[in-house]
Parts: sequence; C-alpha cells; structure tokens
Amino acid sequence: MLKITKPTLLLDRSICLRNIERMAAKAQSSGITFRPHCKTHQSHEIANWFRDFGVSSIAVSSFDMTEYFVHQGWQDILVAFPFNPLEIKRLNELSSIARISVLADNIETINFLQKIENQIGLYIDIDPGYGRTGIRSDQFQQIEDLLVSINKNSKLDFSGFYCHAGHSYKAKNRSEQDGIHQKAISDLSALKKHFEGYGPRVLYGDTPNCSIQTDFHGIDEITPGNFVFYDLVQASLGSCEESDIAVAMVCPVTGKYPDTNEVLIHGGAVHFSKEALNMNGRQIFGKLVNHTPSGWSPLQTGSYITSISQEHGVVAMEEKVVEQTKIGDLMVFHPVHSCLTANLMKGYTTLDGEMISMC
Amino acid sequence: MLKITKPTLLLDRSICLRNIERMAAKAQSSGITFRPHCKTHQSHEIANWFRDFGVSSIAVSSFDMTEYFVHQGWQDILVAFPFNPLEIKRLNELSSIARISVLADNIETINFLQKIENQIGLYIDIDPGYGRTGIRSDQFQQIEDLLVSINKNSKLDFSGFYCHAGHSYKAKNRSEQDGIHQKAISDLSALKKHFEGYGPRVLYGDTPNCSIQTDFHGIDEITPGNFVFYDLVQASLGSCEESDIAVAMVCPVTGKYPDTNEVLIHGGAVHFSKEALNMNGRQIFGKLVNHTPSGWSPLQTGSYITSISQEHGVVAMEEKVVEQTKIGDLMVFHPVHSCLTANLMKGYTTLDGEMISMC
Repeated sequence: MLKITKPTLLLDRSICLRNIERMAAKAQSSGITFRPHCKTHQSHEIANWFRDFGVSSIAVSSFDMTEYFVHQGWQDILVAFPFNPLEIKRLNELSSIARISVLADNIETINFLQKIENQIGLYIDIDPGYGRTGIRSDQFQQIEDLLVSINKNSKLDFSGFYCHAGHSYKAKNRSEQDGIHQKAISDLSALKKHFEGYGPRVLYGDTPNCSIQTDFHGIDEITPGNFVFYDLVQASLGSCEESDIAVAMVCPVTGKYPDTNEVLIHGGAVHFSKEALNMNGRQIFGKLVNHTPSGWSPLQTGSYITSISQEHGVVAMEEKVVEQTKIGDLMVFHPVHSCLTANLMKGYTTLDGEMISMC
Repeated sequence: MLKITKPTLLLDRSICLRNIERMAAKAQSSGITFRPHCKTHQSHEIANWFRDFGVSSIAVSSFDMTEYFVHQGWQDILVAFPFNPLEIKRLNELSSIARISVLADNIETINFLQKIENQIGLYIDIDPGYGRTGIRSDQFQQIEDLLVSINKNSKLDFSGFYCHAGHSYKAKNRSEQDGIHQKAISDLSALKKHFEGYGPRVLYGDTPNCSIQTDFHGIDEITPGNFVFYDLVQASLGSCEESDIAVAMVCPVTGKYPDTNEVLIHGGAVHFSKEALNMNGRQIFGKLVNHTPSGWSPLQTGSYITSISQEHGVVAMEEKVVEQTKIGDLMVFHPVHSCLTANLMKGYTTLDGEMISMC
C-alpha cells in the first residue's frame, strides 16, 4: 500500500489505458484520425501511452502546453484555442521544430498571422451552437473572406474546420445529446461540401459526443480530451460508467461530527477545484468510493463532498459510517471535473506508486 | 509597461501594503496580536512585508505551507486546520526548529498527539455557528475532557481557543454580519471566563469580521488572511472597496463576437478558478477594470466574465466596447476569490515588473 499523508491524486493506469484503447478503436473503426486533446492530463508520460495506439498528433489549449509537448518530441500539435497574437514569438520558435496548427475565427487574427516566419496549419473555428467561440457554419461568406486572406500567404496552410460542440455538456437527456450531435455533423458536412475545393479536414469532438455517439460521417479527426480519465460530470452525462473513472483523490480524515453526520477531510478547492455538480438538487464536489489495498472500488451508497473551502472538504455520510471512521483514515473520492483537479494537483501517483509528472 | 503575453497575476504592492498597514493598525489600537493567515498569498516575500508592522507570528492551513515558512525563518506558526495525524513526522521535524501550534476538536486527535516528540502549542477549535469544524462554545464538558487529556502531557502546551466565524461570508446584510460577530465574541468571552484557570488566549477572525467590525473585546489575536489582497467577494460583503483589491489578472483578448456583445479572453478556470459570485442574478467569474500604463483603475460600467471553461473566459460587454476592442489587446480583471486565483497562478508580477514567488 502507498504511504500517503496528504491529498494525493491517484491514477489507475489500467482504467486509463482501457479508456484510451476504447476511443482509439472507435476512431479506427470509423476510419477517423485520433488526435487526443492533452489538456486533461497535461503529462508527456501519459501522452506517450497513446503512441501504442497509433497516435502521432495531439491537441492542446495553450502555448505553455505546446512548448512542453514539442520539447517532449511531439511533431504535430494543434493549439485548439483561438490564436493569441501576443504568442507570435513562441509560435515562430515552436513552428521551426514541429508542425504547429492554430485556430482563427476572425480576419484580424488572420491578417496578423501574415507575418508568420514558418509554415503553420490553420483551422477555422466553427461554432456548432455552443456559442463560446467560432463562426457559425452557415456563414459561408464570412468563412470565404477568411479563406481568401489565408490563401494570400503560402506559409498559412489552411487545414480545415475545427468544431467543439461543448453544448453537449448542457444536454438534459439522450435525445437532446443526439440532436446536438446530428445537427453538428450535418452542418459540418454541408460546410465541407461547400468548401470542398479547399480540401478541408473536419476536426470534431468533445468527450460526451465522442463517447456516446457512433455516427461520425464527414468527420476526419476526433479531438476529445477528458475521456482519458473521465469524471463525475461525464458519468452524469452518460459518457461513461463510474467504473471508467481513472482518477481519484485520496484525502486524510481530520475531523468527525456525529451530530451532523459529517466528516472533515483535508481536501478542498485547491485540490478538487470549486467545480460543482448538481446531484438531486444539492451541489457536490466529489463522490466517496471504497478505499481498497489496490486502489478503489465503487460504493453502493452515495456519500458526497457537500461543501468545500480552500483546504477543507466536508463529507456528508450515513450515521453509522461516521461512527466507524477514525481521524487519520484515508478516504478516496472521484472528482467532479478531472481536468481541473489534475491541473491543481500537478502530478499523479499510480496505484503501484509511480509518480507521473505534468506540464 | 510590462511585457505580458499570457494570463498573468498582477500585484499592486502599494494597495497590498495599505491593506496590511490598516489591519495592523486596527489590531494595535485594539491591543490585539496580529497573526495574519498566509494561505491567501502563500509567499515568503509578501509575508516579510508584515514584519515591518511588528508581525512575528503567522497562521497557515497545511503542512506544505508550514514547511515552506519555517524554512523561510518564521518561528511561530499556527497550522489553522484540524490536525492530520498522518502529518506527525513533519510536525516532529518542524517543531524541533520552530514553535508550531496545531488545532484539535476531538479526543482521538489529542490522544494521538500524546506521542509528540517536541513541545507544540495546541488550540481547541471552536465552532461559532459556521458548522464546518470545531466544538460549540457552550459544550463545556466536552472541552473540559479535552483539556484534561491535553494536560497529561507537558509537551502539549494548551494555548487557547481558535474560532473562525466563516458564516460571516453568508450574511445577507450588515445587520446579520453584526449579529454573527457579536454572538461569536460574546460566546468566546464566556468560554474564556469559564476556562480562565487554563489561561487561554482567544484567536479569532475571518476577513469580513476583521475588516468591518471594531469591537474585539475578549479577543487576544486576530488571524485574517484574505484582506492582504481582498477580492470581489469581499467587496460584495462590504469588507473593502473595490479600490482596495490589490490583485488583478491580465488576460489577452483572442476573440470578439459583436453579435452577442462578447469578447473571448485567454483566462479560464485554471487561472481564475471556478469560484463564482452572484451578481444581480447571474454568475460572474471576474470584473473588468481599466488597464492603465501603471496598472489598473476602476471602471464605471460593470463588465464581467460571465462564463469560464478550462482556458477560456467569455466577457459580456457593451456593444461599443466590443467594437473598440482588438484581438491581442490585454484586459484586466479583479478575481472573485483571490486566494484561489493566487493558488492557481503560483506567483505574482508587481506593477514594476518584479516576480514574487509562492510556496
């Protein structure tokens, strides 16, 4: 058993590898390139696990991550975030040693990119109705204007369309999920056909859609990220079972309060993040699982972290469980949002005690 | 002007020093020891600024911070978190080189502490109605039982009572705030009187109460933390004016969407945290201020970050401001919760370009 004394992020490598294998198999069976997003794990060691499944291209969401993965030998990286002109220096540096692609959704950015020093890939960011970034897929004239400007410079290699249907996270049920996906891939197909002369590739895929859906016609690459670990949000959306969640926080018990059936853990917002999940009308920040010598297993009863401050987590439990709990016990919880938890913890401990570093 | 290309946490040292000076003066005028909590800034450089105001004792919320500040020469540190028995090794190590005090609110922890190697300070954690940790101040018998056990071991130096009235953050108005404070200090006075034979010191003070209240009779030390920077939560509670907020996030603009009057910034949950503030019925994650050559100044109109994902922040703005904004501009925002923002950013840049490190 691992010697754990403070909040620690555990990684079950076998679950993680299973998640990777499943998504790689889905991409392969659909004849689609698998370009995993690395923003969830932010680890070159974990990124390397993907190589055994034929992965050679990745997506990231910042130039810090781009720099990190380029220096770890990745040669094809999409910075899946609308390009920030203030990062031009790093773009020039990194594009001299690897194939870097960026996103743009406006003419200002493309005009700015005319002064680029090395060839880069350029994707136009398409908004499928999520409303965060991108151009609506039916705005053909606006897209045409961008393409004309892109084609003025041979260093700007128009690569295709990038689409993140993040409103899949807001779908209330399977029918809404299916509707979001079908509309997105139908719109993207129309877009691809309209601009077929430019030979665009279509990149698509958040974790819910890539996990749940099976029809990816017209899509050339999928770019999910969170599936590598999954989490309680994904389980609540039906993207995975709880048994597919590959990470868990171990937290020491430092207080117990039988009057309120609560236990205090060292495990707060600086470990789990403040991301909350609505669970039957109350906000929860983590779900208790069974701590076993080899890791964790699901619990039948639902016990949750119900409030969280900087270092404190309060766990609501059944009365008899509070009584059985001892100060100094370790409790294990699945996080609500594994991307934010991993980003805070800055590293992983595998179940056999290996430390895995991060960006 | 600073050369900023990515999300960066700015610190206005003059505002920060003014916040420190004001709180130090309040403690001094009340005849109270000032033991600032360092969990907000987590920086030995900033902790050193307090020394000029006579501060020689601090509070922290983890053994990671304790270790950091002991190695920076702090000789009197309260770990203001119910003691985690799994940290006994670090407690033994650190208490051999500095005066370390810990909190306990149950007999299990005190029994465990009987095997301590060096003398430590021990405070009993008192719950003033917040309901997170501690023993209710009227549970005299339970407190007496702890004291009897503490006094069995001369290495356990009973130092007094620690009380964090965190429900001050939930007060709906000034009258509720005053009620929480008056009840807390009244209960603490009764507690102190009841156990006067033990010579207890009373430690008290969250940032709202320490900022707003003036009557601290019976209190021996105040332990606020957030006041060093303040933030939008504190301004909304009346703990400070917005002009007292000493930190701000600078974020590059990477998208603009005139159809929805929104601007996209590189600045997301991994920079600001997911802490939200309810502002007239909507959730906000940061407030725009005016970017000036020397830092920032308040804006008359309220523009807010209205949604946030891992790296993305969406800012709702007036139409004419969106039009004036350029891709690559820098925008400056006050954070909702400066403790969590600082913890994520892992360092500060002062307005004159000095880098300040963190734990």
